[in-house]
Amino acid sequence: MGAYRGHSSGGRRVFLPGPLPTFGGLVTPRRAGFTYAASGVDRSDVSAALHELLRGTRYRPPIAHGRPLELPGHYAGLVRVGRETLAITTDTVGTKVVLAERVGRWEEVGEDLVGVNVNDLAAVGARPAALVDTILCDRPRPAVFRSLGIGLGRGLRRAKCALLGGETAVVPDLVRGIDLGGTALGFFPRRRAPVTGARIRPGDVLLGIPSRGLHANGFTLVRRLLDSSRVRLGSPRPGGRWPVGRELLVPTRIYSSAVDAVVDDPGIQGLAHISGGGVRNLPRLRPHVAFVLDRWPRVPGLFRWLQELGSISDEEMFQTFNMGIGFVLVVRAGRSAAVERGLARAGARDVVRIGRVERGRGVRLPAFGLDYETYS
Amino acid sequence: MGAYRGHSSGGRRVFLPGPLPTFGGLVTPRRAGFTYAASGVDRSDVSAALHELLRGTRYRPPIAHGRPLELPGHYAGLVRVGRETLAITTDTVGTKVVLAERVGRWEEVGEDLVGVNVNDLAAVGARPAALVDTILCDRPRPAVFRSLGIGLGRGLRRAKCALLGGETAVVPDLVRGIDLGGTALGFFPRRRAPVTGARIRPGDVLLGIPSRGLHANGFTLVRRLLDSSRVRLGSPRPGGRWPVGRELLVPTRIYSSAVDAVVDDPGIQGLAHISGGGVRNLPRLRPHVAFVLDRWPRVPGLFRWLQELGSISDEEMFQTFNMGIGFVLVVRAGRSAAVERGLARAGARDVVRIGRVERGRGVRLPAFGLDYETYS
Repeated sequence: MGAYRGHSSGGRRVFLPGPLPTFGGLVTPRRAGFTYAASGVDRSDVSAALHELLRGTRYRPPIAHGRPLELPGHYAGLVRVGRETLAITTDTVGTKVVLAERVGRWEEVGEDLVGVNVNDLAAVGARPAALVDTILCDRPRPAVFRSLGIGLGRGLRRAKCALLGGETAVVPDLVRGIDLGGTALGFFPRRRAPVTGARIRPGDVLLGIPSRGLHANGFTLVRRLLDSSRVRLGSPRPGGRWPVGRELLVPTRIYSSAVDAVVDDPGIQGLAHISGGGVRNLPRLRPHVAFVLDRWPRVPGLFRWLQELGSISDEEMFQTFNMGIGFVLVVRAGRSAAVERGLARAGARDVVRIGRVERGRGVRLPAFGLDYETYS
Repeated sequence: MGAYRGHSSGGRRVFLPGPLPTFGGLVTPRRAGFTYAASGVDRSDVSAALHELLRGTRYRPPIAHGRPLELPGHYAGLVRVGRETLAITTDTVGTKVVLAERVGRWEEVGEDLVGVNVNDLAAVGARPAALVDTILCDRPRPAVFRSLGIGLGRGLRRAKCALLGGETAVVPDLVRGIDLGGTALGFFPRRRAPVTGARIRPGDVLLGIPSRGLHANGFTLVRRLLDSSRVRLGSPRPGGRWPVGRELLVPTRIYSSAVDAVVDDPGIQGLAHISGGGVRNLPRLRPHVAFVLDRWPRVPGLFRWLQELGSISDEEMFQTFNMGIGFVLVVRAGRSAAVERGLARAGARDVVRIGRVERGRGVRLPAFGLDYETYS
């Protein structure tokens, strides 16, 4: 969690764990509450490392080798090759795999591998065309790979995306367990232009597509919460219908097909995948307006339960998890009803109006007393 | 090392370490000789795991979502989107990073991250357009990231390729040290068609581009050899000019620019990147002919030295390392001189004729008494 995109062309993402292992044994969450600040992760260290990495890489190839399009801080990188504009994005399932290992279920994270990538393509308005996976493991495990394949296949069908290849590396010197990463390639059919958010303006409506649960981010924090409260993964939480382990593993909803069905509507102005960074992803689209989330739906019980386990503040929760809304569309008010109908026809019948764009900057959630000034 | 590509559409690669950690402490290489068979890695376990993974993923999206092109067992996956054919490939630097850590130099593996990917694009005749990187690490390290960035930038300039984004994940629960992976996107300018090898025929000439040393594969084996012989990384090997550590880290030569300069020549029939699998990569291009390597140049001293350290057979060496030739072009005899001139103009002035295509199957190196029947 804690997405950070500082790369001058396209999406560069930084994944930070929640409280690091160096945080040390058991904690008393009631007293302290889990936050990044208390977790020992110094974001400025990461920023410094990234800054150093990118210093050396600012190279622009000759035009015959493709033309990267500047889209600072966005979800995907864009490049013009020949007669097409292409979007590319890369992401891993993060430490959700550690929970998969504990619960002994792998289909869900297989599906996540598709979701985390195609949802980022959807956030620039691209249609997914192909995925390649990178599976690093400490040993080959046929039964696990079979489950991963089933989940991957399910994700590919949901995203209408082909698996075009991959790398499987048995590297016990580097990896403990399994790391699941992927890269997705998208394109802009016919005359579709990338959706950047540059023309978002006050008066636009914010439509939210509900998530199915957690996205594949924040899982290092989730595991710390489970451990510190000695939660049993095999039993349901209070009010839960499934064992906690299964409920937490529910795969990232794949938003790309529904978004693809409406993105040619002229009312669509901006698209945000609410992954690491939570609602603070919104100002990335356009920093010069305020995103006012005054109709946020009831936060699902799973998030409230996690919040209580760690006495986590609303501020931390909304900048870490999706809190029930996984994807946001910024739409001109006059086209909002039409876009909602289009989403419903494409299978997303549960879309809700969660707020609107106003003058100002940052993100506000008045019902929670939250006001995030900038994307950090 | 030990590339394996079994995915029905495009390149799927499997990275196996050399002798696994389970191989146990010090060995007596003089007696045993290092081989895969003795290493404890059962390839059939990996094949079984991969088979299971891929069972679930055979999905073909509707045509409006792109059309994957079948290119079984090749270096890159191909997909047709809109009016362009695109190539995509994904690879990591493997355990070469462990040596980089020991030597304390990171620029080389940063450059490798570009090379391992763009060279696979070159092997289908695609021109690199964009790279995305995935850096997994156990902690942020600004000085290391800076060196990585310098190397990455050098690779990008050599490959004439833009960095379009990436993911940096701090995941101490999953990774020890740093893992460097990437995905490259390539395209086919103007009316260029992918080079598949399907029309390779007896009489074609094999041109080899010399490597600069090892490619980024085989490094788990290399480290075992160094450890078992207690080699000091800071001193040159007999006959070597640099300290061993530096000589081993020399980055993968980037062949893509030179290949791109000649690939529109109608004489070009096949292209092979000699990475994991060594010369056994050649029959992947076309299994119905014999690749006779009867003019292999003198094997560079570094490879001979490694071979002696572990009493490794020629058979194992030529199917593990590049042995001095990093990229092979299969060319109609009548166009061979023109292609050589084209390569020289593009900076590859050291190209050598290494053999020819004959009737039969497999790969032969008569001077070494080697006859590999199939690609395994």
